[in-house]
Amino acid sequence: MIYVVGLGPGSKEYILPKAVETLENSDMLVGFSRALESVNFINTERVAVKSLSDILKIVEENKSKKISIIASGDPCFYGVTDYIKRNIKEEPIEIIPGLSSFQYLMSKIGKSWNGKFLGSVHGREEDFLTVVKENSMCIFLTDSKNSPKVLANKLFIENISCNIWVGENLSYEDEKITVGTPEEIMEKEFSSLSVFVVEEV
Amino acid sequence: MIYVVGLGPGSKEYILPKAVETLENSDMLVGFSRALESVNFINTERVAVKSLSDILKIVEENKSKKISIIASGDPCFYGVTDYIKRNIKEEPIEIIPGLSSFQYLMSKIGKSWNGKFLGSVHGREEDFLTVVKENSMCIFLTDSKNSPKVLANKLFIENISCNIWVGENLSYEDEKITVGTPEEIMEKEFSSLSVFVVEEV
Ligand SMILES: C[S@@+](CC[C@H](N)C(=O)[O-])C[C@H]1O[C@@H](n2cnc3c(N)ncnc32)[C@H](O)[C@@H]1O
Ligand SMILES: C[S@@+](CC[C@H](N)C(=O)[O-])C[C@H]1O[C@@H](n2cnc3c(N)ncnc32)[C@H](O)[C@@H]1O
Repeated sequence: MIYVVGLGPGSKEYILPKAVETLENSDMLVGFSRALESVNFINTERVAVKSLSDILKIVEENKSKKISIIASGDPCFYGVTDYIKRNIKEEPIEIIPGLSSFQYLMSKIGKSWNGKFLGSVHGREEDFLTVVKENSMCIFLTDSKNSPKVLANKLFIENISCNIWVGENLSYEDEKITVGTPEEIMEKEFSSLSVFVVEEV
Repeated sequence: MIYVVGLGPGSKEYILPKAVETLENSDMLVGFSRALESVNFINTERVAVKSLSDILKIVEENKSKKISIIASGDPCFYGVTDYIKRNIKEEPIEIIPGLSSFQYLMSKIGKSWNGKFLGSVHGREEDFLTVVKENSMCIFLTDSKNSPKVLANKLFIENISCNIWVGENLSYEDEKITVGTPEEIMEKEFSSLSVFVVEEV
């Protein structure tokens, strides 16, 4: 049996009781090291992986076990759900949802996200500028290549008048939320774990 | 101090620890009766309301208190956030996010929701058919007027070939998830608490 378990943004206060229960009742936890660290209060055997394909190997080698694959945020929002479902066919898979990192940020800045554009430039190319021009508010997951600095610079060059919020290391002790114009944000450095929100003014 | 606290779909297993802690540290809980029932394990004074404006009245009458307004799902997804922020200006407001009912359903049916259309026909008119025709998968909150039966009937009349999932009373003991074609779904009755997913085939 395979469980894909959503962790939320990372801190214990934002992990669902259902997720904790599932992890406690598993024989083995598999995930990237950041995800495993978030659940260091759980006493289940754990295996850290460095790539998605490593997860498949672990699953293959432990067929009779209850394995929980730990996923950041909500596994069904730019998460591992599709990859796992595509690649593991012989075993039942149950998904335990979680709070997405962007939901956490939106609650902190007190803004609704229904009707807003939700996207990701994390390891993927969205047509960032087109999307920003067509939507009054856009929310993006980022990465170190498509960083908040790089995105803000694109907005600055195009002279788009907007406000930006960047949420770094959300729910962790070093969480930081920065607000600014493209010109202000493009001068700063941010954590590779950041969510980027842009609203037209 | 005002807290707007997300409950998740309703069952205790899907309420964030941060939400429970906030409710326990409040002087008063305010919400609709279903929401209050979901937190009957918390020993804080509670006031049931029948309308959003009742909430404002309670807040007005209890100025010095820490009041938690309980909201279903995520308060920032078709929730009370905008209404509360628009109408309460004199007091600080903190939002505690929650798992949305649709996230719960998507995890149960094992499908990602990034890039999908997210909408609501709960007390509002979306251009339902246009949206369904333009998107390969759409997720809608419903209500008793724009019920799953009514929506399925619209799809049937337009001869749209698709699969529908309806999630009723999600996370509660009487939870039910039904899959079918428009023709099958339009013949059934569903709870007024339902999420509707439609995917083109
Ligand atoms: C592969 S995606 C997974 C997203 C995840 N499924 C979710 O719902 O949040 C990873 C990206 O999510 C965002 N992210 C996840 N956790 C975060 C946190 N605690 N603080 C800021 N951003 C976070 C970052 O943009 C990161 O690059
Ligand atoms: C006013 S909206 C609030 C939505 C909420 N903010 C959320 O994120 O789920 C109420 C609608 O949410 C959906 N809903 C909320 N809880 C539900 C549950 N437990 N089961 C099914 N649908 C639910 C129904 O479509 C209901 O009519």
